[in-house]
Amino acid sequence: MSGILILGVDPGLNRCGWGLVFSEGARLSHVAHGVIAPSPKQQLASRLHDVFEGLMAVMDQYRPQEAAVEETFVNSNARAALALGQARGVALAAAARTGLMVAEYAPTTIKKAVVGSGAADKTQIAFMVRRLLPTAGEVSADAADALGVALCHAAHGGFRRRAGA
Amino acid sequence: MSGILILGVDPGLNRCGWGLVFSEGARLSHVAHGVIAPSPKQQLASRLHDVFEGLMAVMDQYRPQEAAVEETFVNSNARAALALGQARGVALAAAARTGLMVAEYAPTTIKKAVVGSGAADKTQIAFMVRRLLPTAGEVSADAADALGVALCHAAHGGFRRRAGA
Repeated sequence: MSGILILGVDPGLNRCGWGLVFSEGARLSHVAHGVIAPSPKQQLASRLHDVFEGLMAVMDQYRPQEAAVEETFVNSNARAALALGQARGVALAAAARTGLMVAEYAPTTIKKAVVGSGAADKTQIAFMVRRLLPTAGEVSADAADALGVALCHAAHGGFRRRAGA
Repeated sequence: MSGILILGVDPGLNRCGWGLVFSEGARLSHVAHGVIAPSPKQQLASRLHDVFEGLMAVMDQYRPQEAAVEETFVNSNARAALALGQARGVALAAAARTGLMVAEYAPTTIKKAVVGSGAADKTQIAFMVRRLLPTAGEVSADAADALGVALCHAAHGGFRRRAGA
């Protein structure tokens, strides 16, 4: 049985987290993680392009086979939803450009997969990510969220189990 | 005095309009326009990638020097704002990737520049776009909006006049 390398992304215009998890059966291992943080002094289009280029560089370097992105929770703040949507659109397009299939998971699904409860907070996610991936070392909140999405995708068996293969 | 080729974009996930206007002093001429309409049967990431690729192809073919995108009107519908944000982010990143500076104009600014009144409706914009660019021929609503954004940028003198050059 061969494993799959999963890229998790926590999209954001100021800080876009990414994390790579290798999943082989029940075995999960940390590969890499990071945060893309475009300079807020740049024009919006340039910042979005930085996110796009940053994710393309990560995919070029590590060649993940599948990607997972958190489904955005849409609250009543339309302005925030628009801003987040812009970063999210770029992340999804970059993954599709590399030919990756992209899974999307609701925040509660991710929390349940990583912590065991859909009501977990960010601190609990970061704690469990470090526990499940002990070799990850120091992980910022954005990268922990990204690793959490990748872990969630692994827990759901990736696209192969989803597709019943 | 040399002119500038301006790309206007009306971002959308189902229909992304684009239009190219050549501006030389007070002279405006239609160059091309079109609509990118990804199949709604595709995964979201693939549709966003189609928008990205479509705009990249337009820019590769015509080599515009400047781009203009409508600033999104954020109403109370956060879900719609997120969806539009995704398409908009991809359009902005594609323009920045090509090295274009991207101007953003509020809907009322565009209406005022094209029709003369910030309260104009879509029909009036399409009417004036066809009148200002008589060689454009048949133009769909999305492409007319995109040409309208380009016309607005031309009316504001592009980046050169904006920068005081």
